[in-house]
Amino acid sequence: MKVYEFAGFPNPARVRIALAEKGLTDKVDFVSVNVPEGEHRNAEFLAKNPSGKVPALETEDGTVIAECTAITEYLDHMDGAPELTGKTPQERGVIHMMQRRAEEGLLDAVGAYFHHATPGLGPDIETVQFADWGNHQKDRAIEGMKYFNSVLEKQDYVAGDTFTMADITVFAGLAFAGFANIDVPAECSALKDWQSKVSSRPSFAA
Amino acid sequence: MKVYEFAGFPNPARVRIALAEKGLTDKVDFVSVNVPEGEHRNAEFLAKNPSGKVPALETEDGTVIAECTAITEYLDHMDGAPELTGKTPQERGVIHMMQRRAEEGLLDAVGAYFHHATPGLGPDIETVQFADWGNHQKDRAIEGMKYFNSVLEKQDYVAGDTFTMADITVFAGLAFAGFANIDVPAECSALKDWQSKVSSRPSFAA
Repeated sequence: MKVYEFAGFPNPARVRIALAEKGLTDKVDFVSVNVPEGEHRNAEFLAKNPSGKVPALETEDGTVIAECTAITEYLDHMDGAPELTGKTPQERGVIHMMQRRAEEGLLDAVGAYFHHATPGLGPDIETVQFADWGNHQKDRAIEGMKYFNSVLEKQDYVAGDTFTMADITVFAGLAFAGFANIDVPAECSALKDWQSKVSSRPSFAA
Repeated sequence: MKVYEFAGFPNPARVRIALAEKGLTDKVDFVSVNVPEGEHRNAEFLAKNPSGKVPALETEDGTVIAECTAITEYLDHMDGAPELTGKTPQERGVIHMMQRRAEEGLLDAVGAYFHHATPGLGPDIETVQFADWGNHQKDRAIEGMKYFNSVLEKQDYVAGDTFTMADITVFAGLAFAGFANIDVPAECSALKDWQSKVSSRPSFAA
């Protein structure tokens, strides 16, 4: 299979971690799409992913699966032994709930701040910006950090007792926040301890 | 189990349809949360769903699962025979991809327009509005309609040959768009035909 990505970007990093967690990294041909130079808006890439976003995964039969949650669902079920997305109905529900909160309340909020309220990827890429909204999303990301801190004061991982895709998403959100100079509030010690713990997983070093 | 909702709202409607598709409607105690009167911001409800949103599902052991995708994952797997979220890894991937596109590119875009660029639920509820961004999201929703129309010119349902949760989400997006006076472009005949077809399912009449 192929994965279209751009090295160092937050969402491609999520898929890299999921691949490593599942032991699938060496099964993938990685294809670089140069987003800062606008390659994601070329007709060739838009034919694969009309949303124009990386990452996107192409299966052996040519089917393209975009969006991190979708890609993770695919990868996690390939071996019939899901670990990142849950085994029981209730686990699945809780993990998807926390995944959505991690996207909406942290990672995507940081992205909105970066792309709308900072120069982002530069004027050629950031052609539509709403700065007030972007700054509001920064505040929302900080609220998200406080929320996940409160969660991690009570349990080991974002969705419960085990590492799941929701941990990957919160981690990517914090990494993107660091890049965008949004500080984790000093009082969020449970979140910082968790960040240190998960960063020591082999999949995060890949 | 309990479902916290507010009748007639787009996201609760998605869960009502999923419940009907799975034959689970009569297993649920529905609890009304009066969002227009701000009941979703009461401490009692926030203790159940810190995001303050309906719908939220409470399982028999008291676990709360919020967010429609998460609730649908839970409901669809209860009987061990998932239909709405996919059976194979590739089906799961494609369905989750289309689900995210249906949320981001249509339903949530309409919601952003409604809550930010119209009076929405009124000044007591819509305390933070970014009108320019909301109007941009209206344009995005119309682009989303055109995208799903192009998809439905080539296949029977949003994620392929069978009805899935992504169909529910697109349908809810169109219903919300109608409520918010965003017209489906005249050329989107495949989308309109699909809308008419799915609306005849028994689950949509519930």
